[in-house]
Amino acid sequence: MTLKSKIKPIIEDNTEKSGKWFDLVIQFFIVLSLLAFSIETLPDISVRLNNFLDNFELFTIVIFTIEYILRLWVSEKKLKFIFSFYALIDLFAILPFYLSFGIDLRSIRVFRLIRLFRVFKMLRFNRAIQNFGCALKSIKEELILYFILSSFLIFLSSIGIYYFENPAQPEIFKSIFHSMWWAIATLTTVGYGDIYPITAGGKIFTSLILLIGLGVVAVPTGLIASALSKTKDNKDN
Amino acid sequence: MTLKSKIKPIIEDNTEKSGKWFDLVIQFFIVLSLLAFSIETLPDISVRLNNFLDNFELFTIVIFTIEYILRLWVSEKKLKFIFSFYALIDLFAILPFYLSFGIDLRSIRVFRLIRLFRVFKMLRFNRAIQNFGCALKSIKEELILYFILSSFLIFLSSIGIYYFENPAQPEIFKSIFHSMWWAIATLTTVGYGDIYPITAGGKIFTSLILLIGLGVVAVPTGLIASALSKTKDNKDN
Amino acid sequence: MTLKSKIKPIIEDNTEKSGKWFDLVIQFFIVLSLLAFSIETLPDISVRLNNFLDNFELFTIVIFTIEYILRLWVSEKKLKFIFSFYALIDLFAILPFYLSFGIDLRSIRVFRLIRLFRVFKMLRFNRAIQNFGCALKSIKEELILYFILSSFLIFLSSIGIYYFENPAQPEIFKSIFHSMWWAIATLTTVGYGDIYPITAGGKIFTSLILLIGLGVVAVPTGLIASALSKTKDNKDN
Amino acid sequence: MTLKSKIKPIIEDNTEKSGKWFDLVIQFFIVLSLLAFSIETLPDISVRLNNFLDNFELFTIVIFTIEYILRLWVSEKKLKFIFSFYALIDLFAILPFYLSFGIDLRSIRVFRLIRLFRVFKMLRFNRAIQNFGCALKSIKEELILYFILSSFLIFLSSIGIYYFENPAQPEIFKSIFHSMWWAIATLTTVGYGDIYPITAGGKIFTSLILLIGLGVVAVPTGLIASALSKTKDNKDN
Repeated sequence: MTLKSKIKPIIEDNTEKSGKWFDLVIQFFIVLSLLAFSIETLPDISVRLNNFLDNFELFTIVIFTIEYILRLWVSEKKLKFIFSFYALIDLFAILPFYLSFGIDLRSIRVFRLIRLFRVFKMLRFNRAIQNFGCALKSIKEELILYFILSSFLIFLSSIGIYYFENPAQPEIFKSIFHSMWWAIATLTTVGYGDIYPITAGGKIFTSLILLIGLGVVAVPTGLIASALSKTKDNKDN
Repeated sequence: MTLKSKIKPIIEDNTEKSGKWFDLVIQFFIVLSLLAFSIETLPDISVRLNNFLDNFELFTIVIFTIEYILRLWVSEKKLKFIFSFYALIDLFAILPFYLSFGIDLRSIRVFRLIRLFRVFKMLRFNRAIQNFGCALKSIKEELILYFILSSFLIFLSSIGIYYFENPAQPEIFKSIFHSMWWAIATLTTVGYGDIYPITAGGKIFTSLILLIGLGVVAVPTGLIASALSKTKDNKDN
Repeated sequence: MTLKSKIKPIIEDNTEKSGKWFDLVIQFFIVLSLLAFSIETLPDISVRLNNFLDNFELFTIVIFTIEYILRLWVSEKKLKFIFSFYALIDLFAILPFYLSFGIDLRSIRVFRLIRLFRVFKMLRFNRAIQNFGCALKSIKEELILYFILSSFLIFLSSIGIYYFENPAQPEIFKSIFHSMWWAIATLTTVGYGDIYPITAGGKIFTSLILLIGLGVVAVPTGLIASALSKTKDNKDN
Repeated sequence: MTLKSKIKPIIEDNTEKSGKWFDLVIQFFIVLSLLAFSIETLPDISVRLNNFLDNFELFTIVIFTIEYILRLWVSEKKLKFIFSFYALIDLFAILPFYLSFGIDLRSIRVFRLIRLFRVFKMLRFNRAIQNFGCALKSIKEELILYFILSSFLIFLSSIGIYYFENPAQPEIFKSIFHSMWWAIATLTTVGYGDIYPITAGGKIFTSLILLIGLGVVAVPTGLIASALSKTKDNKDN
């Protein structure tokens, strides 16, 4: 039995204990490197901390490089592996460092987090994800219809508010695209307060749009609720 | 077989391949002309882009005019066609251009988007729309009741907050109509921040209204969810 | 057959045509008088409009007085009528005018709107209201539990944010009562923007509270949805 | 029969009338002491009120001390009682006063409110709490999955908005941690207005994130709704 055949199950299989540990260690370093990446964006960190983060960055790159080489080594079809979705993400996460580009592409590493979903296979989350998938699949057509209706409502709202508010606030409701930003912030009920109607007509129009908009927001909730309920019932029976 | 009988199915029928393509081309130009219309509202576009958009406008008007004439030509009952809902929208979308009114009525073209719903017939969306229709129909009475209750709550909130806030903020809570704008922005949880209570009484009143208001917002969600769930079950069985 | 026995069904019964019309006329004047009341709060109305509204006010008072006297006259048990809920509201709606109090109590008239619910008896809304009543009744215990949990969460949030934000913003997070206003505006996701955390601790605390809070907001929606769904099913079967 | 055996059921058992009264009196003082604690945080209270509140504080401490001693006295396993969850909270609520620490730890008393849940045993709330517990338990895996998905979405949004807005607003979108505060305030639709995108890219990114985010918010609502509905049905049948 070669070394390769010993290492292969540890890296590729996550049902065995050693494979689980390998996955957990890699995921732990992904989370740590993301945290380091976030801390580095803080504007007033000391030189010492910055140096430590740079060294830690180097350390994680080494680990991720070793991981990538190991995965490549144990894979049977090398070419198929290199162009697989996860392998490309892994490559993009380490490549920028070696190419010494001036641009900071480390944020791509976040896509490595997609790997965290593999964790679910280890745990007993299979059923939960399957239910989700089934539920969303069973209402696919309704969700598409909902997105078309929402886009329609947002576009109509933008045109409407533009005609009411542009003459009164030409600097804020500059164009229909600026009005779209208002429409989305309003219909999702975020309401930052950076853009809002001040004319009587604009306020009445907003009120009407909001009363309809609340119904629109209620639709996906209702859809997902009923789909999940039904999927769970089917699974349990 | 005349030319008319050849063109008729292409224009009126969208179950055949040629009819589908005719519909898609028209819808494509509707979306493009709406986009052009939105871009033209941008305050700082170059003269060159403006000229291009004006020419494109002319081009779409020509296409929509040809479409209208073709539809009129192939229709059996001319008068009935002219006064049909869609034909009137089509007419209003091109008429302003020919009348050279100073007023920009091109926004009416947005109603042509209603035609986009015909697309659903081509795709397999029938069931989704039917379910929606059935669900909304089955809770028609409840939705009317909900709108009456909401109006009642908004009006009561407006009067209440007017008494609490008008003495403290006479410029903001000017009248009950101004308070209604507050009531809608608050009960829909948008909360722009342009109008809010500052007195202790007004804040306590707002808190109570919000706790009840959240329940009111929950009602249509619950109604639509239960209606959709039931309609889907009935259809599937 | 006396005049009283002729008028009695018109006033007290709303299943007959004449009774329906009497109810609709009264309700029409209630809505009109409320509208007049709202318009009078506008700060810059002309003297002429003000005079008209004063006269209209006099006119509605006369109508509501006649209605009250008629109801009293046709009622069999006079004393029981006078102290009935609706009669007291009717009295409070006209009394202030006759007593010529300086205080404006006309807003009490809004409670006459409760009468609008009688309309539902005429229409076929019975089933909708009954379903609502049944649904809310069947989840009474859950709703009480939810209100206790919400109050608990709001109080805890207020104490928490007070400790985080009071030292940094002593003028805004003045006391736990001021923090409560923040807690309600935040957990209902209104977020006016008049009061929000600025410290790192306060922001982290708010984030945690919001993630829990969203679940709390989801509870009544879920409760009412499931209750309505079940009640409707029971009724339909 | 000793005094101890007489007092024991009053303190430990709340199914008998005397035990219910004992519980209610203690809970009444908890609520009062919390109210006093809240009032004391008001910045401009008179010296007289402050003195009264200090005396009331002393009074409640005495009552809670007597309660603690009584509970300790009647408990069979003293050591087990002292280290029980509720006894530790009771102790922490009175200890700071006796230790005369400068730090105000009276807020710990809020945890005594947990005792209010004992009240539910007296009332007929058992079923409501049990349903809640069962419902949450049956969707435990889905809720965990939802929290992972939410964290993932919040982190990705933070990184995205940081790249769009940091160059334009370096003082507001200072770091990824500051962006996280934005992500949470936005995805929960609170939208205080203290931090929001101003660049075109940031606004388009926010719009996309919000459309996905609304779906994420809909998930727990749907989950809890379907779980509650199913649990209730199972219980009732």
